Amino acid sequence: MKAIQDYYAPEMSHCFGCGNRNAAGYQLKSHFHGSHAEARFTIDRQYSGGFPDYAYGGIVASLLDCHGIAAAAAFFQQAQGKTLDSGEAVPRFVTGSLKVDYKRPTPLGVEIRLLGKLRSIEGRRVVVELELLAGEEVCATGELLAVQLKG
Amino acid sequence: MKAIQDYYAPEMSHCFGCGNRNAAGYQLKSHFHGSHAEARFTIDRQYSGGFPDYAYGGIVASLLDCHGIAAAAAFFQQAQGKTLDSGEAVPRFVTGSLKVDYKRPTPLGVEIRLLGKLRSIEGRRVVVELELLAGEEVCATGELLAVQLKG
Repeated sequence: MKAIQDYYAPEMSHCFGCGNRNAAGYQLKSHFHGSHAEARFTIDRQYSGGFPDYAYGGIVASLLDCHGIAAAAAFFQQAQGKTLDSGEAVPRFVTGSLKVDYKRPTPLGVEIRLLGKLRSIEGRRVVVELELLAGEEVCATGELLAVQLKG
Repeated sequence: MKAIQDYYAPEMSHCFGCGNRNAAGYQLKSHFHGSHAEARFTIDRQYSGGFPDYAYGGIVASLLDCHGIAAAAAFFQQAQGKTLDSGEAVPRFVTGSLKVDYKRPTPLGVEIRLLGKLRSIEGRRVVVELELLAGEEVCATGELLAVQLKG
């Protein structure tokens, strides 16, 4: 199943967090399942916080940001009655705001899951609710306002 | 002038964003000036967003997070009537929540400034207001809730 990010136009695929044209980046891949978007990712041990065994806050925010933007694009397409693979370029969103609540430390070196659910769509503005989970434990929650780039 | 992060205990200095024991990381350095904390940083071009010339949202959040935590530690010490160089370990804070508002794209390859000002201190909880500036332009603002780690 092709990731949402792999439907972005090539000239908009340079993101360090999720662009398939950024060889040095995380290349996060988010998949759309209609009711939600999900991504799986293992954070490398170099991205630790103050203590060696847990992620630093920045990468938690980074992953939630890229996943939220991808989810917003997919929910937007769905609301227009379109699928991601319709052949048209998937609209590209940018972050208007991101709020992250850190619930517990996020582990390194094990697969984590990111979930994104739709809260609202109004015109070019999509709000996505986010979770980062390790196993069944919620390590962080987030809320992202995504704004569609004007063409 | 020694950075706030250089007063953290060595075992808490592994943060990818600002730890002086993380060789691969950004090694952000925040300086305390009593009324505010300031950091200067140049974002490498690899950390681009979808388009090549601007930062991805994640690194903006990452820098605001690390700078806000450092500012919180410094304001907390100040409120206790202590200086950073008193010889005691500077208390280490972790992020409870971070909200970032993205105002305009953050440029790559030029020096940006991060500012942190105190909003409130209640017990172990410190709230810091943040700005990221390129020249005189505010690219992002933030609000961070920092919570002191229990010893």
